[in-house]
Amino acid sequence: MQLSAETLGFDPPPPAASVGRYAPFVCHQGIVSIVQGPLWREELRYVGRVGAGIDLAQAQEAARLCCANLLVQLQAACGGDLLRVQSCYRLGGFINASENFTEHTTVMNAASDLLLKVLGEEMRHSRYVVGCSSLPFNLVMELEGWFGIAS
Amino acid sequence: MQLSAETLGFDPPPPAASVGRYAPFVCHQGIVSIVQGPLWREELRYVGRVGAGIDLAQAQEAARLCCANLLVQLQAACGGDLLRVQSCYRLGGFINASENFTEHTTVMNAASDLLLKVLGEEMRHSRYVVGCSSLPFNLVMELEGWFGIAS
Amino acid sequence: MQLSAETLGFDPPPPAASVGRYAPFVCHQGIVSIVQGPLWREELRYVGRVGAGIDLAQAQEAARLCCANLLVQLQAACGGDLLRVQSCYRLGGFINASENFTEHTTVMNAASDLLLKVLGEEMRHSRYVVGCSSLPFNLVMELEGWFGIAS
Repeated sequence: MQLSAETLGFDPPPPAASVGRYAPFVCHQGIVSIVQGPLWREELRYVGRVGAGIDLAQAQEAARLCCANLLVQLQAACGGDLLRVQSCYRLGGFINASENFTEHTTVMNAASDLLLKVLGEEMRHSRYVVGCSSLPFNLVMELEGWFGIAS
Repeated sequence: MQLSAETLGFDPPPPAASVGRYAPFVCHQGIVSIVQGPLWREELRYVGRVGAGIDLAQAQEAARLCCANLLVQLQAACGGDLLRVQSCYRLGGFINASENFTEHTTVMNAASDLLLKVLGEEMRHSRYVVGCSSLPFNLVMELEGWFGIAS
Repeated sequence: MQLSAETLGFDPPPPAASVGRYAPFVCHQGIVSIVQGPLWREELRYVGRVGAGIDLAQAQEAARLCCANLLVQLQAACGGDLLRVQSCYRLGGFINASENFTEHTTVMNAASDLLLKVLGEEMRHSRYVVGCSSLPFNLVMELEGWFGIAS
């Protein structure tokens, strides 16, 4: 199974550039670690603070782009076939949010919903989501995930 | 071995409701991921910011409830028998704290102490704990853990 | 391969004391979890907030000390031989930063660069780095890592 406009609901993003000394994913012994931001290739598409300029709908769009980028990298880790994914251990979300923001769950659900839509309900995952007082380049969000794949 | 008022020091909480699109735990290939908050079933029992309305003792109570909820899920992941737990890789704590708060370790020790009391000293774990400017629903804390269990 | 002034570029730090109820590392089934701060044995060497008293160069020094402490523990997890390290799944950085700070990547690169210098370019890792409104003891940074080692 591959990402497409049909499975994803929109065109798959191009692989996001690394904006630092890191790899987009690491796969070892069937365990995959990925972290992605709301980038479109090299463009920092969602920048700002939720609850202070960025509204809930925009934050959800950022979460969906983070998740789409994560799925792009997961597909690469699987050698192109997402059917090799056996488990999503966890998603973790870091949201650039104002102090009085409390709707982190609504933002994070946008990422989880997209992942479950693409990979199926059996990929339900444990999850945390927290508010951060600052993020790199003032990005709206960072999304991290751990997966188990058939090796 | 099962959670009880004797092992835990208080009555085990009922399994906490998921307040979003996530699973309380995921177990795959003997690795278990869990994230829990200070909920009592569906009730958000500890809400507020440490150092700004929530004091240290309340934060420690929140940490103990997070940890008890985590143990409840770990027990479920083990099919009911906590003796199957072989390793606690890590605990991570996110604390809703004011900017000048510095006693994160005192709060987190309450969680670690409870885990070691129930599972034994050989379950010493690596650990981070950080202050967050906001958390979902203004909860006092989120606690995440990774475990290795006999499969 | 062992840590030395030659491989590290400076004298390896002594193992940092645990400032709480945790272990410096956990190794189980070939997976190693480590979290370290910018301590020199028991001394909290880097304390303060980046962008509010701590400048970028100091934050990078803190990141390098975190990474050196992490490598010291990784070496212990390997029974003294870092050639047993097969994979660095991930590094995660929590930076004590002011709200308007945006150069987290520059700080974190200092940690990643040191790790790659010591362990080699094949240890490129996935990575997140976020700003925190407070950290334990007002430390500048916490660094966490996951590794795969030959068992």
